[in-house]
Amino acid sequence: MASDGYPSHPRATGNRLKARTKYDYDTVHHLIDTTPILHVSFPPNGDDPFPATLPMLGCTGPDTFDAASEQARLSEPDHSAPGSFPTGDEKKTLPSLPDGPRCIYLHGHSASRLFQVSKGNKLPVTIAASSMQGIVLALTPFHNSCNYSSAIVHGYASLLDDEIERNYALTRITDNLLPERWDNSRVPPTKAELTTTGVIKVEIESASAKVRVGGPGDDRADLKNEELVGRVWTGVVPCWTQYGTPVPSSYNKVPTVPGYISSFVKEENDTGKAVSVDAIQKSSK
Amino acid sequence: MASDGYPSHPRATGNRLKARTKYDYDTVHHLIDTTPILHVSFPPNGDDPFPATLPMLGCTGPDTFDAASEQARLSEPDHSAPGSFPTGDEKKTLPSLPDGPRCIYLHGHSASRLFQVSKGNKLPVTIAASSMQGIVLALTPFHNSCNYSSAIVHGYASLLDDEIERNYALTRITDNLLPERWDNSRVPPTKAELTTTGVIKVEIESASAKVRVGGPGDDRADLKNEELVGRVWTGVVPCWTQYGTPVPSSYNKVPTVPGYISSFVKEENDTGKAVSVDAIQKSSK
Repeated sequence: MASDGYPSHPRATGNRLKARTKYDYDTVHHLIDTTPILHVSFPPNGDDPFPATLPMLGCTGPDTFDAASEQARLSEPDHSAPGSFPTGDEKKTLPSLPDGPRCIYLHGHSASRLFQVSKGNKLPVTIAASSMQGIVLALTPFHNSCNYSSAIVHGYASLLDDEIERNYALTRITDNLLPERWDNSRVPPTKAELTTTGVIKVEIESASAKVRVGGPGDDRADLKNEELVGRVWTGVVPCWTQYGTPVPSSYNKVPTVPGYISSFVKEENDTGKAVSVDAIQKSSK
Repeated sequence: MASDGYPSHPRATGNRLKARTKYDYDTVHHLIDTTPILHVSFPPNGDDPFPATLPMLGCTGPDTFDAASEQARLSEPDHSAPGSFPTGDEKKTLPSLPDGPRCIYLHGHSASRLFQVSKGNKLPVTIAASSMQGIVLALTPFHNSCNYSSAIVHGYASLLDDEIERNYALTRITDNLLPERWDNSRVPPTKAELTTTGVIKVEIESASAKVRVGGPGDDRADLKNEELVGRVWTGVVPCWTQYGTPVPSSYNKVPTVPGYISSFVKEENDTGKAVSVDAIQKSSK
């Protein structure tokens, strides 16, 4: 492993636009953790020529799982005693992971295809996480582009069978989807729930990210064409994932949306907008 | 081909949640056309075990390209004569495609890896297009979910070399990103632009879509637990892609954002919000 990022294997190296390619841990991990739907591709069954691809939920986890400190965390009174759930908006999220390499946890039903395939095997998988920050509009379609961020991770997937790590991974995946949700719902899972939930751990072999920022760039000939520049609007339409007003279920009995949910909605929307607008001012070079 | 959708090959068949799996043309095509970033996976080079995955722009195209009618369209005065570009908000988009099977056009730089690999070959590719419509929050993490739509398409990719179809595909890809943009920019492309732009055509072999809608579903035991139901907020946080105020480039000279761009922003935001909120009221069964 490189000291500050994933190794630069040819499979993870773009053969053009090298300036846009990044290998640092932060960029790769941030993309995996903030992209709601990951696309997981793996070799096809038998003679089928097409790679299999599944949309999945997941997030990064520790490179090496520390069972002892997780057991210590679980034995704190707030986490074990029934009826001792936090009732307000206390911060109960898992400690954040240290810098350095990580694994990826993927979550799914244990009957799904990937979970069957990876039983007892280490399956090579490619995980893609992409998000768009804007439509880049140039004078000519040839120079149109998108501001986007995309991480591609290659690694070996195996089914987690250690119950403590499984519970830990599910906590992390849940709180990655919505911070503090784990402690604000009915936990721990029942035996039956744990049995039918598959958790896959992917050990990362190589990874890279591509990040396109900035405004459009046009050719000199077009830029000198005053009629053209006066007629065609150029710039960026920023975009991000917007979260709306939470809609209660038919059986919800909690009268107001809890603070940890409403602050998530506000913070995600503010951050998404700011990131997409800030990206326009940055330089792609 | 089935009369109203793609064939149900095992590779495209979920082995659970069959009720969520769809094969109809409309659902598959809509997802490909409305998901900004497609993930294209193909078999690795040589002995590398990991499928290659690239983020790409693309859209659906006709199953069979009709060169004659495209040539007729191009010979209309508005499209050929220099200086005859529409200056206002006239609707100049390509006619919409008929029902039935389609191909997928992918766009990229002709030096990129996929374009090298597919030169002279038909390369098996798997295209994934997913979008999230909401975070589904249940009483227990086990029943948390996402409202999402995901299309997975398998097909054979080849480089387009016919110049008329290439120009047509680029028109469709551009207008799919932002309706009417092709005619509102500097077209046709120069020879050099056409040479360095690769367009890949994917002939679809099989395809399917998964669509999860509705609110959370919890187990009877949890629903009967009044303390739990009174404490844990359940419901859906809807989400969609939000487009912000267009930001002009440093060399933009068009004083106001053209109508075709501002209506796109408004319509996408209204539709995105409505679709994610409507999805909550639907039943997944």
